[in-house]
Amino acid sequence: MSGDLSSTTRTKLHRLRERGSTDRADLYAVLDAGLVCHLGVVIDGSPVVLPTGYGRIGETLYLHGSSANRSLLSADGQQVCVTVTLLDGLVCARAVFHHSMNYRSAVIFGQARLVTADDERLAALHAVTEQLAPGQWAYARLPTRKELAATAVLALPLAEASVKGRSGGPKDDDEDYQTDIWAGVLPAALTFGAAEPDAKLTEGIEVPEHIRRLAGTTRGAAR
Amino acid sequence: MSGDLSSTTRTKLHRLRERGSTDRADLYAVLDAGLVCHLGVVIDGSPVVLPTGYGRIGETLYLHGSSANRSLLSADGQQVCVTVTLLDGLVCARAVFHHSMNYRSAVIFGQARLVTADDERLAALHAVTEQLAPGQWAYARLPTRKELAATAVLALPLAEASVKGRSGGPKDDDEDYQTDIWAGVLPAALTFGAAEPDAKLTEGIEVPEHIRRLAGTTRGAAR
Repeated sequence: MSGDLSSTTRTKLHRLRERGSTDRADLYAVLDAGLVCHLGVVIDGSPVVLPTGYGRIGETLYLHGSSANRSLLSADGQQVCVTVTLLDGLVCARAVFHHSMNYRSAVIFGQARLVTADDERLAALHAVTEQLAPGQWAYARLPTRKELAATAVLALPLAEASVKGRSGGPKDDDEDYQTDIWAGVLPAALTFGAAEPDAKLTEGIEVPEHIRRLAGTTRGAAR
Repeated sequence: MSGDLSSTTRTKLHRLRERGSTDRADLYAVLDAGLVCHLGVVIDGSPVVLPTGYGRIGETLYLHGSSANRSLLSADGQQVCVTVTLLDGLVCARAVFHHSMNYRSAVIFGQARLVTADDERLAALHAVTEQLAPGQWAYARLPTRKELAATAVLALPLAEASVKGRSGGPKDDDEDYQTDIWAGVLPAALTFGAAEPDAKLTEGIEVPEHIRRLAGTTRGAAR
Protein backbone atom coordinates (compact mmCIF):
# COMPACT_ATOMS: atom_id res chain seq x y z
CA MET A 1 0.00 0.00 0.00
CA SER A 2 1.20 3.47 -0.73
CA GLY A 3 -0.13 6.95 -0.56
CA ASP A 4 -1.32 9.25 2.16
CA LEU A 5 -1.67 8.15 5.73
CA SER A 6 -5.01 8.80 7.30
CA SER A 7 -5.30 12.28 8.67
CA THR A 8 -6.89 12.51 12.08
CA THR A 9 -7.25 15.28 14.61
CA ARG A 10 -3.96 14.28 16.20
CA THR A 11 -1.96 14.30 13.01
CA LYS A 12 -3.42 17.49 11.65
CA LEU A 13 -0.52 19.78 12.26
CA HIS A 14 -1.66 22.98 13.85
CA ARG A 15 1.32 25.01 12.78
CA LEU A 16 3.95 25.11 10.08
CA ARG A 17 1.51 23.36 7.83
CA GLU A 18 3.93 23.63 4.93
CA ARG A 19 6.38 21.44 6.84
CA GLY A 20 3.84 18.65 7.24
CA SER A 21 3.78 15.58 5.10
CA THR A 22 1.53 12.59 5.19
CA ASP A 23 3.24 10.61 2.53
CA ARG A 24 3.90 7.02 3.48
CA ALA A 25 7.24 6.91 1.67
CA ASP A 26 8.46 9.88 3.71
CA LEU A 27 7.35 8.15 6.89
CA TYR A 28 9.23 4.98 6.01
CA ALA A 29 12.34 6.94 5.04
CA VAL A 30 12.49 8.56 8.48
CA LEU A 31 11.77 5.33 10.34
CA ASP A 32 14.26 3.30 8.33
CA ALA A 33 17.00 5.88 8.90
CA GLY A 34 16.65 6.06 12.70
CA LEU A 35 18.17 3.98 15.47
CA VAL A 36 16.23 5.06 18.55
CA CYS A 37 12.57 5.95 18.97
CA HIS A 38 10.85 7.61 21.91
CA LEU A 39 7.80 5.73 23.15
CA GLY A 40 5.15 7.76 24.96
CA VAL A 41 2.66 5.98 27.19
CA VAL A 42 0.23 7.24 29.80
CA ILE A 43 0.73 5.68 33.22
CA ASP A 44 -1.59 6.71 36.07
CA GLY A 45 -2.69 9.67 33.97
CA SER A 46 0.80 11.03 33.41
CA PRO A 47 2.98 10.78 30.31
CA VAL A 48 6.13 8.64 30.33
CA VAL A 49 8.62 8.91 27.45
CA LEU A 50 11.25 6.23 27.05
CA PRO A 51 13.92 5.61 24.40
CA THR A 52 13.99 2.19 22.82
CA GLY A 53 15.10 0.30 19.74
CA TYR A 54 12.68 -0.55 16.98
CA GLY A 55 12.25 -2.10 13.57
CA ARG A 56 9.69 -2.01 10.80
CA ILE A 57 8.02 -4.80 8.83
CA GLY A 58 5.78 -3.39 6.15
CA GLU A 59 3.06 -1.36 7.82
CA THR A 60 3.91 -2.39 11.38
CA LEU A 61 6.44 -0.86 13.75
CA TYR A 62 7.95 -3.19 16.34
CA LEU A 63 9.41 -1.93 19.60
CA HIS A 64 11.71 -4.05 21.61
CA GLY A 65 12.49 -4.34 25.29
CA SER A 66 12.98 -6.69 28.18
CA SER A 67 9.97 -8.68 29.37
CA ALA A 68 10.69 -7.00 32.73
CA ASN A 69 10.18 -3.51 31.25
CA ARG A 70 6.92 -2.44 32.88
CA SER A 71 6.43 0.66 30.74
CA LEU A 72 6.60 -1.44 27.61
CA LEU A 73 4.27 -4.10 29.01
CA SER A 74 1.83 -1.48 30.30
CA ALA A 75 1.39 -0.17 26.78
CA ASP A 76 -0.42 -3.33 25.65
CA GLY A 77 -3.84 -2.32 24.36
CA GLN A 78 -3.18 1.32 25.17
CA GLN A 79 -2.87 4.41 23.01
CA VAL A 80 0.79 5.22 22.52
CA CYS A 81 2.84 7.73 20.59
CA VAL A 82 6.16 6.81 19.03
CA THR A 83 8.46 9.53 17.74
CA VAL A 84 11.64 9.18 15.71
CA THR A 85 13.75 12.31 15.27
CA LEU A 86 16.77 12.74 13.01
CA LEU A 87 18.81 15.86 13.59
CA ASP A 88 20.40 17.20 10.41
CA GLY A 89 21.92 20.50 11.42
CA LEU A 90 21.92 23.70 13.42
CA VAL A 91 20.45 26.66 11.60
CA CYS A 92 22.29 29.83 12.59
CA ALA A 93 20.37 32.90 11.51
CA ARG A 94 21.31 36.56 11.73
CA ALA A 95 18.69 36.95 14.46
CA VAL A 96 18.54 34.76 17.57
CA PHE A 97 14.78 34.51 17.03
CA HIS A 98 15.25 32.73 13.69
CA HIS A 99 17.68 30.12 14.94
CA SER A 100 16.37 26.65 14.25
CA MET A 101 17.28 23.04 13.62
CA ASN A 102 17.20 21.08 10.42
CA TYR A 103 15.58 17.76 11.19
CA ARG A 104 13.21 15.05 10.09
CA SER A 105 10.73 13.52 12.49
CA ALA A 106 7.96 10.96 12.41
CA VAL A 107 5.20 10.89 15.00
CA ILE A 108 3.03 7.77 15.08
CA PHE A 109 -0.16 7.34 17.06
CA GLY A 110 -2.03 4.14 17.68
CA GLN A 111 -3.01 1.29 19.93
CA ALA A 112 -0.05 -0.85 20.88
CA ARG A 113 -0.27 -4.61 20.98
CA LEU A 114 2.06 -6.91 22.88
CA VAL A 115 3.23 -9.60 20.48
CA THR A 116 2.62 -13.07 21.89
CA ALA A 117 3.07 -15.42 18.92
CA ASP A 118 6.62 -16.80 18.74
CA ASP A 119 6.89 -16.52 14.97
CA GLU A 120 5.81 -12.86 14.93
CA ARG A 121 8.15 -12.14 17.85
CA LEU A 122 11.04 -13.78 16.00
CA ALA A 123 10.29 -11.78 12.83
CA ALA A 124 10.08 -8.61 14.89
CA LEU A 125 13.42 -9.30 16.58
CA HIS A 126 14.91 -9.83 13.14
CA ALA A 127 13.66 -6.40 12.07
CA VAL A 128 14.84 -4.74 15.30
CA THR A 129 18.30 -6.32 15.06
CA GLU A 130 18.75 -5.40 11.41
CA GLN A 131 17.59 -1.84 12.13
CA LEU A 132 20.36 -1.59 14.73
CA ALA A 133 23.17 -3.29 12.86
CA PRO A 134 22.40 -4.65 9.39
CA GLY A 135 23.99 -8.04 8.83
CA GLN A 136 24.06 -9.12 12.47
CA TRP A 137 21.01 -11.40 12.22
CA ALA A 138 22.78 -13.59 9.67
CA TYR A 139 26.08 -13.36 11.56
CA ALA A 140 25.39 -13.74 15.31
CA ARG A 141 23.83 -16.60 17.26
CA LEU A 142 20.04 -16.59 16.88
CA PRO A 143 17.70 -16.46 19.89
CA THR A 144 16.78 -19.62 21.74
CA ARG A 145 13.21 -20.32 22.76
CA LYS A 146 14.10 -19.17 26.28
CA GLU A 147 15.62 -15.93 25.05
CA LEU A 148 12.57 -15.26 22.92
CA ALA A 149 10.39 -15.68 26.00
CA ALA A 150 12.48 -13.10 27.86
CA THR A 151 11.89 -10.50 25.15
CA ALA A 152 8.95 -8.15 25.01
CA VAL A 153 7.89 -6.88 21.62
CA LEU A 154 5.26 -4.21 21.09
CA ALA A 155 3.55 -3.83 17.70
CA LEU A 156 2.12 -0.56 16.45
CA PRO A 157 0.24 -0.21 13.15
CA LEU A 158 1.61 2.51 10.88
CA ALA A 159 -1.82 3.89 10.15
CA GLU A 160 -1.91 7.27 11.86
CA ALA A 161 1.23 9.31 11.58
CA SER A 162 2.73 12.60 10.61
CA VAL A 163 6.12 13.44 9.20
CA LYS A 164 7.70 16.81 9.66
CA GLY A 165 10.99 18.36 8.86
CA ARG A 166 13.05 21.39 8.09
CA SER A 167 15.92 21.71 5.66
CA GLY A 168 17.87 24.49 4.02
CA GLY A 169 19.31 27.75 5.25
CA PRO A 170 18.07 30.34 7.72
CA LYS A 171 15.13 32.64 7.02
CA ASP A 172 15.87 36.09 8.36
CA ASP A 173 13.94 39.33 8.41
CA ASP A 174 14.58 41.56 5.41
CA GLU A 175 16.43 44.24 7.35
CA ASP A 176 18.85 41.74 8.92
CA TYR A 177 20.29 40.71 5.54
CA GLN A 178 22.11 44.06 5.50
CA THR A 179 24.06 43.30 8.68
CA ASP A 180 27.53 41.76 8.79
CA ILE A 181 26.35 38.81 10.87
CA TRP A 182 27.26 35.39 9.47
CA ALA A 183 24.39 32.99 8.82
CA GLY A 184 24.26 29.43 7.63
CA VAL A 185 23.87 25.81 8.60
CA LEU A 186 26.16 23.63 10.66
CA PRO A 187 25.38 20.12 9.41
CA ALA A 188 25.10 17.36 12.01
CA ALA A 189 24.79 13.59 11.67
CA LEU A 190 25.22 10.49 13.77
CA THR A 191 28.62 9.14 12.81
CA PHE A 192 30.17 5.76 13.59
CA GLY A 193 33.73 5.35 14.80
CA ALA A 194 36.02 2.36 14.35
CA ALA A 195 34.73 -0.88 15.87
CA GLU A 196 36.13 -1.61 19.35
CA PRO A 197 36.59 -5.34 19.92
CA ASP A 198 35.29 -6.86 23.15
CA ALA A 199 38.13 -7.24 25.69
CA LYS A 200 37.20 -10.91 25.96
CA LEU A 201 37.34 -11.53 22.23
CA THR A 202 39.29 -14.64 21.23
CA GLU A 203 42.47 -13.57 19.49
CA GLY A 204 42.38 -13.74 15.73
CA ILE A 205 38.67 -13.05 15.21
CA GLU A 206 38.38 -10.23 12.68
CA VAL A 207 35.73 -7.51 12.60
CA PRO A 208 33.14 -8.74 10.08
CA GLU A 209 32.92 -6.70 6.91
CA HIS A 210 29.34 -5.49 7.52
CA ILE A 211 30.50 -3.88 10.79
CA ARG A 212 33.92 -2.74 9.64
CA ARG A 213 32.55 -0.80 6.70
CA LEU A 214 30.34 1.33 8.98
CA ALA A 215 33.35 3.08 10.55
CA GLY A 216 33.43 6.72 9.48
CA THR A 217 29.99 6.57 7.90
CA THR A 218 26.94 8.46 9.05
CA ARG A 219 23.60 6.92 9.91
CA GLY A 220 20.46 8.25 8.31
CA ALA A 221 22.04 11.46 7.06
CA ALA A 222 19.79 13.72 5.02
CA ARG A 223 20.01 13.10 1.30
CA MET B 1 22.00 22.31 45.57
CA SER B 2 23.59 18.98 44.87
CA GLY B 3 22.93 15.38 45.74
CA ASP B 4 20.21 12.89 45.00
CA LEU B 5 17.03 13.79 43.21
CA SER B 6 13.86 12.82 44.95
CA SER B 7 12.86 9.28 44.25
CA THR B 8 9.20 8.76 43.47
CA THR B 9 7.18 5.88 42.15
CA ARG B 10 7.74 7.07 38.59
CA THR B 11 11.51 7.32 38.89
CA LYS B 12 12.00 4.09 40.77
CA LEU B 13 13.41 2.04 37.96
CA HIS B 14 11.72 -1.30 37.79
CA ARG B 15 14.50 -3.04 35.95
CA LEU B 16 18.22 -2.81 35.44
CA ARG B 17 18.46 -1.16 38.81
CA GLU B 18 22.25 -1.11 38.57
CA ARG B 19 21.93 1.17 35.53
CA GLY B 20 19.87 3.73 37.44
CA SER B 21 21.35 6.86 38.88
CA THR B 22 19.72 9.65 40.81
CA ASP B 23 22.72 11.86 41.05
CA ARG B 24 22.06 15.43 40.08
CA ALA B 25 25.46 15.87 38.46
CA ASP B 26 24.78 12.93 36.15
CA LEU B 27 21.43 14.46 35.21
CA TYR B 28 22.99 17.80 34.37
CA ALA B 29 25.74 16.11 32.36
CA VAL B 30 23.19 14.38 30.13
CA LEU B 31 21.02 17.48 29.76
CA ASP B 32 23.94 19.77 29.01
CA ALA B 33 25.28 17.38 26.36
CA GLY B 34 22.05 17.02 24.38
CA LEU B 35 20.53 19.11 21.60
CA VAL B 36 17.01 17.75 21.31
CA CYS B 37 14.59 16.57 23.98
CA HIS B 38 11.34 14.68 23.56
CA LEU B 39 8.40 16.25 25.37
CA GLY B 40 5.55 13.96 26.35
CA VAL B 41 2.16 15.44 27.10
CA VAL B 42 -1.29 13.91 27.47
CA ILE B 43 -3.86 15.36 25.10
CA ASP B 44 -7.44 14.04 25.25
CA GLY B 45 -6.17 11.09 27.25
CA SER B 46 -3.55 10.03 24.72
CA PRO B 47 0.20 10.58 24.82
CA VAL B 48 1.86 12.95 22.36
CA VAL B 49 5.66 12.97 22.03
CA LEU B 50 7.33 15.88 20.26
CA PRO B 51 10.97 16.80 19.70
CA THR B 52 12.04 20.28 20.70
CA GLY B 53 15.03 22.36 21.71
CA TYR B 54 15.75 23.14 25.32
CA GLY B 55 18.14 24.77 27.74
CA ARG B 56 18.86 24.61 31.44
CA ILE B 57 19.25 27.34 34.05
CA GLY B 58 20.20 25.86 37.39
CA GLU B 59 17.42 23.55 38.50
CA THR B 60 14.97 24.52 35.78
CA LEU B 61 14.66 23.10 32.28
CA TYR B 62 13.29 25.42 29.61
CA LEU B 63 11.63 24.15 26.44
CA HIS B 64 11.19 26.36 23.48
CA GLY B 65 8.65 26.58 20.71
CA SER B 66 6.45 28.85 18.69
CA SER B 67 3.57 30.55 20.49
CA ALA B 68 1.42 28.80 17.86
CA ASN B 69 2.58 25.35 19.03
CA ARG B 70 -0.56 23.96 20.64
CA SER B 71 1.11 20.90 22.18
CA LEU B 72 3.57 23.13 23.98
CA LEU B 73 0.86 25.53 25.12
CA SER B 74 -1.42 22.71 26.21
CA ALA B 75 1.27 21.50 28.60
CA ASP B 76 0.87 24.56 30.85
CA GLY B 77 -0.02 23.34 34.33
CA GLN B 78 -0.01 19.72 33.18
CA GLN B 79 2.14 16.75 34.09
CA VAL B 80 4.75 16.25 31.40
CA CYS B 81 7.71 13.99 30.79
CA VAL B 82 10.84 15.22 29.08
CA THR B 83 13.44 12.73 27.87
CA VAL B 84 16.93 13.42 26.53
CA THR B 85 18.76 10.49 24.97
CA LEU B 86 22.37 10.38 23.84
CA LEU B 87 23.35 7.40 21.73
CA ASP B 88 26.95 6.32 22.30
CA GLY B 89 27.29 3.10 20.35
CA LEU B 90 25.93 -0.16 19.02
CA VAL B 91 26.76 -3.15 21.18
CA CYS B 92 27.28 -6.19 18.98
CA ALA B 93 27.25 -9.36 21.07
CA ARG B 94 27.93 -12.94 20.01
CA ALA B 95 24.21 -13.63 20.49
CA VAL B 96 21.45 -11.59 18.85
CA PHE B 97 19.65 -11.61 22.21
CA HIS B 98 22.48 -9.67 23.90
CA HIS B 99 22.71 -6.93 21.30
CA SER B 100 22.22 -3.56 22.88
CA MET B 101 23.01 0.13 22.66
CA ASN B 102 25.38 2.21 24.71
CA TYR B 103 23.53 5.35 25.68
CA ARG B 104 22.81 7.93 28.37
CA SER B 105 19.30 9.15 28.99
CA ALA B 106 17.56 11.48 31.37
CA VAL B 107 13.84 11.24 32.07
CA ILE B 108 12.26 14.17 33.88
CA PHE B 109 8.76 14.29 35.30
CA GLY B 110 6.91 17.30 36.58
CA GLN B 111 4.31 19.97 36.14
CA ALA B 112 5.11 22.30 33.29
CA ARG B 113 4.63 26.02 33.55
CA LEU B 114 4.27 28.42 30.64
CA VAL B 115 6.68 31.29 31.23
CA THR B 116 4.92 34.63 31.01
CA ALA B 117 7.38 37.13 32.50
CA ASP B 118 9.50 38.78 29.81
CA ASP B 119 12.73 38.67 31.81
CA GLU B 120 12.43 34.95 32.54
CA ARG B 121 11.49 34.30 28.91
CA LEU B 122 14.56 36.22 27.75
CA ALA B 123 16.81 34.30 30.14
CA ALA B 124 15.28 31.04 28.96
CA LEU B 125 15.82 31.93 25.31
CA HIS B 126 19.42 32.71 26.16
CA ALA B 127 19.81 29.23 27.66
CA VAL B 128 18.05 27.54 24.73
CA THR B 129 20.15 29.40 22.14
CA GLU B 130 23.43 28.67 23.92
CA GLN B 131 22.46 25.00 24.28
CA LEU B 132 22.01 24.85 20.50
CA ALA B 133 25.03 26.86 19.40
CA PRO B 134 27.24 28.28 22.14
CA GLY B 135 28.38 31.80 21.31
CA GLN B 136 25.41 32.75 19.14
CA TRP B 137 23.64 34.78 21.84
CA ALA B 138 26.56 37.20 22.02
CA TYR B 139 26.99 37.15 18.24
CA ALA B 140 23.55 37.32 16.59
CA ARG B 141 20.84 39.99 16.80
CA LEU B 142 18.92 39.70 20.08
CA PRO B 143 15.13 39.27 20.18
CA THR B 144 12.87 42.25 19.93
CA ARG B 145 9.89 42.65 22.23
CA LYS B 146 7.65 41.45 19.39
CA GLU B 147 9.79 38.37 18.77
CA LEU B 148 9.76 37.54 22.47
CA ALA B 149 5.97 37.67 22.41
CA ALA B 150 5.91 35.20 19.53
CA THR B 151 7.94 32.67 21.50
CA ALA B 152 6.50 30.10 23.87
CA VAL B 153 8.72 28.89 26.69
CA LEU B 154 7.81 26.05 29.01
CA ALA B 155 9.55 25.67 32.38
CA LEU B 156 9.97 22.34 34.14
CA PRO B 157 11.56 21.99 37.59
CA LEU B 158 14.40 19.46 37.71
CA ALA B 159 13.07 17.83 40.87
CA GLU B 160 11.91 14.41 39.79
CA ALA B 161 14.13 12.63 37.35
CA SER B 162 16.05 9.51 36.59
CA VAL B 163 19.25 9.00 34.66
CA LYS B 164 20.07 5.74 32.98
CA GLY B 165 22.77 4.50 30.74
CA ARG B 166 24.82 1.65 29.42
CA SER B 167 28.48 1.67 28.55
CA GLY B 168 31.16 -0.90 27.83
CA GLY B 169 31.29 -4.09 25.82
CA PRO B 170 28.76 -6.84 25.24
CA LYS B 171 27.76 -9.32 27.93
CA ASP B 172 27.38 -12.75 26.41
CA ASP B 173 26.46 -16.14 27.81
CA ASP B 174 29.43 -18.20 29.00
CA GLU B 175 29.17 -20.80 26.25
CA ASP B 176 29.14 -18.18 23.48
CA TYR B 177 32.62 -16.91 24.35
CA GLN B 178 33.99 -20.10 22.79
CA THR B 179 32.52 -19.32 19.36
CA ASP B 180 34.37 -17.52 16.55
CA ILE B 181 31.75 -14.75 16.39
CA TRP B 182 33.15 -11.23 16.61
CA ALA B 183 31.79 -9.04 19.39
CA GLY B 184 32.41 -5.45 20.35
CA VAL B 185 31.11 -1.93 20.22
CA LEU B 186 30.63 0.35 17.25
CA PRO B 187 30.91 3.85 18.75
CA ALA B 188 28.44 6.47 17.56
CA ALA B 189 28.23 10.20 18.16
CA LEU B 190 26.57 13.26 16.68
CA THR B 191 29.24 14.90 14.57
CA PHE B 192 29.26 18.35 13.00
CA GLY B 193 30.34 18.99 9.43
CA ALA B 194 31.81 22.14 7.97
CA ALA B 195 29.59 25.22 8.23
CA GLU B 196 27.55 25.92 5.08
CA PRO B 197 27.06 29.66 4.51
CA ASP B 198 23.59 30.96 3.70
CA ALA B 199 23.20 31.44 -0.07
CA LYS B 200 22.16 35.03 0.65
CA LEU B 201 25.19 35.80 2.78
CA THR B 202 26.89 39.09 1.93
CA GLU B 203 30.25 38.35 0.36
CA GLY B 204 33.21 38.63 2.67
CA ILE B 205 31.49 37.70 5.94
CA GLU B 206 33.57 34.97 7.54
CA VAL B 207 32.29 32.06 9.61
CA PRO B 208 32.70 33.18 13.24
CA GLU B 209 35.29 31.25 15.21
CA HIS B 210 32.78 29.75 17.70
CA ILE B 211 30.95 28.10 14.77
CA ARG B 212 33.97 27.27 12.64
CA ARG B 213 35.70 25.34 15.40
CA LEU B 214 32.72 22.96 15.75
CA ALA B 215 33.35 21.39 12.35
CA GLY B 216 34.56 17.82 12.77
CA THR B 217 33.78 17.76 16.48
CA THR B 218 31.22 15.58 18.17
CA ARG B 219 28.45 16.83 20.42
CA GLY B 220 28.00 15.33 23.86
CA ALA B 221 30.17 12.31 23.17
CA ALA B 222 30.66 9.96 26.12
CA ARG B 223 33.73 10.79 28.18
